[in-house]
Amino acid sequence: MRASVHRFTMRDPSDVSQLAGAIDDGRIDPAQIVAFIGKTEGNGLVNDYTRGYLVQSLSLLLAERTGHSAEAIAKSVAFVFSGGTEGVLTPHYTVFCVDPSEHPDAPDGAMGKRLAIGRALTRVPRPEEIGTRAQVALIAEAVERAMVEAGIDDPADVHFVQVKGGCVTADGVRDAKQRGVALASADPNRSMTLSRVAGAFGVMQALGDIDSAQVDESLFLTRPDLWSDRASVSSGIEVTMNEVVVFGNAESWSSDFVIAHHTMDDALDINGIYACLEQLGIDCRGDSRAGSLARIACALVKCEPDASGAIRGQRHTMWQDGDIHAQRHIRGAVGGLVAGVLGDTRIFVSGGAEHQGPPGGGLLALIARVGPS
Amino acid sequence: MRASVHRFTMRDPSDVSQLAGAIDDGRIDPAQIVAFIGKTEGNGLVNDYTRGYLVQSLSLLLAERTGHSAEAIAKSVAFVFSGGTEGVLTPHYTVFCVDPSEHPDAPDGAMGKRLAIGRALTRVPRPEEIGTRAQVALIAEAVERAMVEAGIDDPADVHFVQVKGGCVTADGVRDAKQRGVALASADPNRSMTLSRVAGAFGVMQALGDIDSAQVDESLFLTRPDLWSDRASVSSGIEVTMNEVVVFGNAESWSSDFVIAHHTMDDALDINGIYACLEQLGIDCRGDSRAGSLARIACALVKCEPDASGAIRGQRHTMWQDGDIHAQRHIRGAVGGLVAGVLGDTRIFVSGGAEHQGPPGGGLLALIARVGPS
Amino acid sequence: MRASVHRFTMRDPSDVSQLAGAIDDGRIDPAQIVAFIGKTEGNGLVNDYTRGYLVQSLSLLLAERTGHSAEAIAKSVAFVFSGGTEGVLTPHYTVFCVDPSEHPDAPDGAMGKRLAIGRALTRVPRPEEIGTRAQVALIAEAVERAMVEAGIDDPADVHFVQVKGGCVTADGVRDAKQRGVALASADPNRSMTLSRVAGAFGVMQALGDIDSAQVDESLFLTRPDLWSDRASVSSGIEVTMNEVVVFGNAESWSSDFVIAHHTMDDALDINGIYACLEQLGIDCRGDSRAGSLARIACALVKCEPDASGAIRGQRHTMWQDGDIHAQRHIRGAVGGLVAGVLGDTRIFVSGGAEHQGPPGGGLLALIARVGPS
Amino acid sequence: MRASVHRFTMRDPSDVSQLAGAIDDGRIDPAQIVAFIGKTEGNGLVNDYTRGYLVQSLSLLLAERTGHSAEAIAKSVAFVFSGGTEGVLTPHYTVFCVDPSEHPDAPDGAMGKRLAIGRALTRVPRPEEIGTRAQVALIAEAVERAMVEAGIDDPADVHFVQVKGGCVTADGVRDAKQRGVALASADPNRSMTLSRVAGAFGVMQALGDIDSAQVDESLFLTRPDLWSDRASVSSGIEVTMNEVVVFGNAESWSSDFVIAHHTMDDALDINGIYACLEQLGIDCRGDSRAGSLARIACALVKCEPDASGAIRGQRHTMWQDGDIHAQRHIRGAVGGLVAGVLGDTRIFVSGGAEHQGPPGGGLLALIARVGPS
Repeated sequence: MRASVHRFTMRDPSDVSQLAGAIDDGRIDPAQIVAFIGKTEGNGLVNDYTRGYLVQSLSLLLAERTGHSAEAIAKSVAFVFSGGTEGVLTPHYTVFCVDPSEHPDAPDGAMGKRLAIGRALTRVPRPEEIGTRAQVALIAEAVERAMVEAGIDDPADVHFVQVKGGCVTADGVRDAKQRGVALASADPNRSMTLSRVAGAFGVMQALGDIDSAQVDESLFLTRPDLWSDRASVSSGIEVTMNEVVVFGNAESWSSDFVIAHHTMDDALDINGIYACLEQLGIDCRGDSRAGSLARIACALVKCEPDASGAIRGQRHTMWQDGDIHAQRHIRGAVGGLVAGVLGDTRIFVSGGAEHQGPPGGGLLALIARVGPS
Repeated sequence: MRASVHRFTMRDPSDVSQLAGAIDDGRIDPAQIVAFIGKTEGNGLVNDYTRGYLVQSLSLLLAERTGHSAEAIAKSVAFVFSGGTEGVLTPHYTVFCVDPSEHPDAPDGAMGKRLAIGRALTRVPRPEEIGTRAQVALIAEAVERAMVEAGIDDPADVHFVQVKGGCVTADGVRDAKQRGVALASADPNRSMTLSRVAGAFGVMQALGDIDSAQVDESLFLTRPDLWSDRASVSSGIEVTMNEVVVFGNAESWSSDFVIAHHTMDDALDINGIYACLEQLGIDCRGDSRAGSLARIACALVKCEPDASGAIRGQRHTMWQDGDIHAQRHIRGAVGGLVAGVLGDTRIFVSGGAEHQGPPGGGLLALIARVGPS
Repeated sequence: MRASVHRFTMRDPSDVSQLAGAIDDGRIDPAQIVAFIGKTEGNGLVNDYTRGYLVQSLSLLLAERTGHSAEAIAKSVAFVFSGGTEGVLTPHYTVFCVDPSEHPDAPDGAMGKRLAIGRALTRVPRPEEIGTRAQVALIAEAVERAMVEAGIDDPADVHFVQVKGGCVTADGVRDAKQRGVALASADPNRSMTLSRVAGAFGVMQALGDIDSAQVDESLFLTRPDLWSDRASVSSGIEVTMNEVVVFGNAESWSSDFVIAHHTMDDALDINGIYACLEQLGIDCRGDSRAGSLARIACALVKCEPDASGAIRGQRHTMWQDGDIHAQRHIRGAVGGLVAGVLGDTRIFVSGGAEHQGPPGGGLLALIARVGPS
Repeated sequence: MRASVHRFTMRDPSDVSQLAGAIDDGRIDPAQIVAFIGKTEGNGLVNDYTRGYLVQSLSLLLAERTGHSAEAIAKSVAFVFSGGTEGVLTPHYTVFCVDPSEHPDAPDGAMGKRLAIGRALTRVPRPEEIGTRAQVALIAEAVERAMVEAGIDDPADVHFVQVKGGCVTADGVRDAKQRGVALASADPNRSMTLSRVAGAFGVMQALGDIDSAQVDESLFLTRPDLWSDRASVSSGIEVTMNEVVVFGNAESWSSDFVIAHHTMDDALDINGIYACLEQLGIDCRGDSRAGSLARIACALVKCEPDASGAIRGQRHTMWQDGDIHAQRHIRGAVGGLVAGVLGDTRIFVSGGAEHQGPPGGGLLALIARVGPS
């Protein structure tokens, strides 16, 4: 099994020419694409249609090149897009491919642990399950299946889990009313938040960070001290099944890529970024032009504006600003910091980090080519 | 002569309570205040009234405590406020005081070079002088006078020059028309830009970075390779005389404070930030919690979105965004980077950096308490 | 008793020159000013400081001209400013004066009913009273006192009631916790909403639109069919006492001014606007240049984005827009409509109309000079 | 020849289900679709991708239903979308169909003049032609051909001309440089403006409002008194050939639809809107619920913020607002006014009205079903 990681940029959300070129010259086999993770240049809020536009454009390309229908592609490939390239950030997408064949030069396992990818879907949750322990259980079970697909036994080898969860829709509210069942929330925005929270607890449970018996809805949003250092969850009205992509390192894979992760204690925690780089053997402290930074293939960041309204004791204005949304502010600032450390603006930065990393902070995962030994 | 530096925060632009407290408990003599530099929480654009609101609030306080009129205070104190605390930035203002008496323990000069401050005003420029060599000459001459006031002979001892320049107003346009003279531009926005450019060239000329014979309007905005590494210029419709504040280090001053500066080659140039810290003897590479960072008393940054539309070869979206102004984007990103290095969000970050630092980059000045020897 | 109405515009929130001129040339006696109502050019949201800036500027002017302290002025004059001059709206403020002397030509009552103004303050409500029946009772009682001051017996003679209510602050939350009492809400935004709701119910109770025995917190925000056609309520963290200004017509006043009001059933209800004009004898149907429109001295509008997400069956996007706040959208649209009918852009348009006018609609009050008979 | 007009709404720019339904149940023959005009819910500025998203979604649907390629559809159907549904406006699109067969009940001409539609494309202009008399000539000639296609002889029978013009691209700049020819402007934004101006002059020339000998680049943007009362021009980087759609009334067409137009003298000119309605025999003065308004099938508006900064002598803040673009402000205000008159929020409102309608005003075209005689 060989995983590969390809980072492309685009002129706008209709521009998939770089991927088309890579397919056409044989660098990428479209049948081996398992996931996309990327940033589009909308506002990252409810009325951001750049995500859907890019999904449509990519689906069209894959449909054309593989002969599969757009529907089939939507089911077999994970599309994870976050809107908002505030500040220095570059609209881009990373394509993850899995070649099921063994490495020509190295049998699986001969290279040590290398980048491993696994995916899983849950069944369609019932409206009354969204934002509850039931959704937590569904996601935890899906993470476990994705770990099996990735060939990862030890939770310590999991470094990043991307979850997409659904939320209660108008149809779901009607359905629940007819059946006389109670919802965690009938408000779509609240439901989206609770779905993200359930995702984070699902990852925690699957990775052994919390015992399933302990998981309780009363902890949701009231215990910011309970968080996953590897969960990155988004939710949306367009999602039906929960979708999970697990990234880790495993013996049964062979490629040039490895992954590492680290928490960010707050939005100024440059220490956490350098700690993550060190795990990859990249020494670039204070030098955004260090040659070893060229080994980075993908950078994934989750962050949030500190709920207390202050960072290291000093007031921030993100929550009070009526002109720019708080999530846009924090993505711009943390994106600027990570880009300044890595010397590269092609960074996936996503907000909405409830129970995903320390409160007011977040987490970082980096995929890199292995360095010279 | 002793300079002192006091950094305060506020709840909103009417809140001057921290300065009031410092005056009332004797930490600050209001008669010794020479300048304010700070960030307010508006949008930093034309319709940002938080700057004027804070000036009004501070003037009222000083009028009350000194018995001078608000008009007298407006003339004797420099108020430099930049709007826009995007991302993690904290609304704050730094108060610069000059105590004309000698240090009780150390005669002037006994400490080596310490923080020196000098100010100067030009006469009111005629409308047709704005954005021309004539304005350059006025500002260059004012910088020279401010250097004399600061007791600085060697231009190399100047580390930051803040300039406020006027622009052509509707009245100015009428006046020019009546007298039949041509203007560099009758458009207020263009005139503001040209006034900043003239300010930058004025600083360059005064500091010997360019020869006065070389200065020519044809260089304005066409030669981005000509820039000052120490000029920070703002311009506005409310300014009549050009105002200059020079910061440097000089023998004739005694205090705990010193200043250093460095360019930022682009918005990712973390190397430049650490180089500036090193000049102050602060070693904190990759550690935003280093104890030595507590020595920083004031951080001043000038930056701009790269005009080419790309940073290190990757597209940014700042210029195309119709929802958030490009200057707000870049302040948020560079502010996030500098704050993450310094571990502090009280940073003055200003955009509009034509000929002030390398194109697409900018410059940084740090005032710090001297370290343990 | 003679009421007068003066509408002024300004260059920015520091510009009070038109009022200064009117005071200096004797048109306005500053001691007779009882209230200001106006629009400033901020965003009308939490971080809109243009309101406070204008209050400070006006207070300074009145302090200077009357010799009273700014604190005394804040207590004796009502300042009601709404931020946000979206679309065609003009930043302006209307000054309301009361001359206690009788009209030289006409004894009070000889003119018929003319514009009457009354004000009242409540005691400082306890935190646990905000957003409850207790606050409703306080405001109802204040409206009754203001009616007495205005010399209005019949509630039908009341045409507009402006209420400013406080909300629960951080201090209030602490205080309530120490005393062990429950709050309607500890969240400032929710508390502001509930305070507006209590204001609307207070006005309804005082004007006999609802029986005090019927008033119950369970009706708040759940019964949009209960609304006042004359209440305009704002709330804010800066308000301590509830403040009430009643506008109506009464026999005991003499002046050229009368007031009328009408509901707007939805954001397209041009019919309601013309119905209000007709009550004033202004016939201008379809003609924004009708000479009779010059009689309008002040236009006050309250409106809101339809909560259902649709207007007359067609979707609107105000609630989903992450770039422009819903209240800014609706002020721009309804402001554009009312301005197009009146042929004048100096209109007070305020959002946040819970229980103030029909859901998705709002209300309109117009003050006009009496017409030729 | 029979023209038909179908107005549809959508949930988001991927939702073309209403058109799909109309095709599937036989109300619309996809082969007869000649043009789309609509509003999408982006910001209407450079980074508005909702227009392209909707075009892609509609093209996919038509490709699927007709069997033609997306490229063929792009060539044979005009797609005119304006972003920005500020205020009360509803995202929607109007589909224009032309059935070449004669009306079953009425031979062509038997009904009197009815809605006529004609289209034409120019050749691809050379970069040096954009924004010049050469582009004016190309567009004038295309308008004439479109009039022939529409069967309109008398320019007075033309009521609305939609033009899409290209602008100078980076490739165009390079090409011009290589060939050593001068451009009207190398700046894309300026070039877009000049292309709109050339479009407006092209329409004026074709309709006889200006003599071709009089047309001169020196008039562009300097003579706001020269304007078309029927031109609506957009320009964009994605356009290569100039595209023209002419709407009018002609004898050779038979259908229920007729079109009328009127200027708006300024943003408050409700008189102009009612004058247009009267031409259609719709009497609804002051009544947005008049039954006759149901006859309106399509409303097209062009408007702009008054360049003087004032409307009827009162300041507006649209040009100074750094948070909301001036075009968004004016669309929200004028959209609110027209919607309040028509009682319908499905209105096409577009900004950027240089030489299209009186300065600070604009123009309006209404398509309606013929009324009961």
